Amino acid sequence: MRVVNTALRHRFDEALRGFLSAATAPLATTAPDLAPFGAAAEAFVLDGGKRLRPAFCYWAHVGVGGDDDDRIVRAAAALELLQAGALVHDDVIDRSDTRRGAASVHRRFADMHRDARWAGDPDAFGQAAAILLGDLALVWADSMLVGSGMPSDALTNALPLWDLMRTEVMCGQYLDVLEQVRGGGSVERALLVAQLKSAKYTVERPLHLGAALGGAPDDTLAAFSRFGLPLGEAFQLRDDVLGVFGDPGATGKPAGDDVREGKRTVLVALGLEGADGSGRRLLAQLLGALDLDASGLATVRDILASSGAVERVEQLIAARLDEAMSALAALPVSESAREALSGLATAATSRDG
Amino acid sequence: MRVVNTALRHRFDEALRGFLSAATAPLATTAPDLAPFGAAAEAFVLDGGKRLRPAFCYWAHVGVGGDDDDRIVRAAAALELLQAGALVHDDVIDRSDTRRGAASVHRRFADMHRDARWAGDPDAFGQAAAILLGDLALVWADSMLVGSGMPSDALTNALPLWDLMRTEVMCGQYLDVLEQVRGGGSVERALLVAQLKSAKYTVERPLHLGAALGGAPDDTLAAFSRFGLPLGEAFQLRDDVLGVFGDPGATGKPAGDDVREGKRTVLVALGLEGADGSGRRLLAQLLGALDLDASGLATVRDILASSGAVERVEQLIAARLDEAMSALAALPVSESAREALSGLATAATSRDG
Repeated sequence: MRVVNTALRHRFDEALRGFLSAATAPLATTAPDLAPFGAAAEAFVLDGGKRLRPAFCYWAHVGVGGDDDDRIVRAAAALELLQAGALVHDDVIDRSDTRRGAASVHRRFADMHRDARWAGDPDAFGQAAAILLGDLALVWADSMLVGSGMPSDALTNALPLWDLMRTEVMCGQYLDVLEQVRGGGSVERALLVAQLKSAKYTVERPLHLGAALGGAPDDTLAAFSRFGLPLGEAFQLRDDVLGVFGDPGATGKPAGDDVREGKRTVLVALGLEGADGSGRRLLAQLLGALDLDASGLATVRDILASSGAVERVEQLIAARLDEAMSALAALPVSESAREALSGLATAATSRDG
Repeated sequence: MRVVNTALRHRFDEALRGFLSAATAPLATTAPDLAPFGAAAEAFVLDGGKRLRPAFCYWAHVGVGGDDDDRIVRAAAALELLQAGALVHDDVIDRSDTRRGAASVHRRFADMHRDARWAGDPDAFGQAAAILLGDLALVWADSMLVGSGMPSDALTNALPLWDLMRTEVMCGQYLDVLEQVRGGGSVERALLVAQLKSAKYTVERPLHLGAALGGAPDDTLAAFSRFGLPLGEAFQLRDDVLGVFGDPGATGKPAGDDVREGKRTVLVALGLEGADGSGRRLLAQLLGALDLDASGLATVRDILASSGAVERVEQLIAARLDEAMSALAALPVSESAREALSGLATAATSRDG
């Protein structure tokens, strides 16, 4: 899925490359052993990611009349470092071996430990390194935003939102983990997690951040919420569908990983609600089955389709996208920003994954 | 060990209590399930900790002529939230069951999982919750500093140091983990870890932060380094000794935990260097032994004492403390700050733990 256009993506990547090269260089000087640690952070950020959050931030900023220069590109790209930290920790939490089509960070460090025949448990070392590397990415996200060159009054406007966004995503992740172990989640609870983890974190807050950096007043932020929240929910619902039905080549995750991890998505909650007795029992049993194979995944897909859950989710996505597009039409932004945001909205919720 | 005087400690605690109550209140409104998550963060921060880093920051600030008001108390207390995040992650990494004389955060959440008979692995849930709670504490540290009320030019001075400090501590932790698995560490490498993890993080950077918030010029920061770096090393060396010989009632950790975790401290490196062949083999074998009992710990203590390592470390501590005290005499700070910093230095490196 090409969500963000090539020229803008290139600007974000150049900003990230510049920041990371300045941030990692002193590490190797401090201790040569830190070089692989810095390099892993750099590779994780530069080798993947859709730059979706930076794009929302950038277009909100430019749309409200903020300057289109390197400062907002750097500030917006900081969101990608925050996302890197969150994903590295998420993979430790979910024990995911794969991310963006390659080995996850904790897996890479576990392999490094195995190859070097060090003492102790390779997996414990991998987890330790990934926890610390995720922490480092979270710190660097901050540095990149604060050091973006944005004037200090713009930062003063934006930093409370930045903190709120980070609090929301951590709390959303916790509720997500809680839903997985507690099981039997309702559609309402799955929607709350989707709101915190995605609608706010992926769309609404990046828009707010860009608008606040551009000096937009509170009522403009509220208008961005009317666009961003339904769009963000639609995005998460699409992600839920792709997590079960998506092509691993496009998602970067093995087919069925969400099912193996027992994720309690809205799609799953609707499936549990809509399936008949035996379908419900089978679905509940297959959720979180670490040994789920292709035939088990096919069964899950059948139940989700025949229960009407897939159709319901597609309806929810369409309704939310409609709502977002109406709000976009009324958004007080430049026409070029409106067009770009419309393209982002369509691409981020498309079936092509 | 009472390092920080009661009145100042009380001011830090009030600032932390106020911040945390404002930060956790919205969580329970968002979702009642978040209440235990917020409460655990609050309890961890308020139930323990020596407030050593905030005290260094505060006295540097007041010492260079900065205002002694609630703003610097809040900014300095933010260091305690950062430390909370680092410790919660550290306990996951080290798989420590105990912190500050009570169950560690991941252990508490694992117990919550077990008590509720939720699905899946209680330990995996505990780790997930602790990783996210540590992330939240790191975010809140930022919020508390940035929202301390300090003027924006003071924050602009201080934030690059704040970022540098956080990068240093994550890198120091990574090197520490690396030394444990790689084994056979030299005295030099153990000293480098001590410098990054402790000398800079615990003493030098908190001093810099306070001084920078007070508008101190670069040469004053350099003078603080001459005091803080040797003192910080002495503090870490004392901590290493207490980790093996300390009273669990004072350290809050079971006796011998550092040995069980295989920590490659300067004390241990000197022990491996100074012991005879059989002592060295025995020490290497007992380091990282998860089943280390009282008799094993007594053996480790004997080897460290008879190899001369303990005496060497005591000499290193005394020499560094001397160096720090000479630098303190020349530090361009008020006499009341000099006296307070002298008291902190003595208490933080004392044998009483």
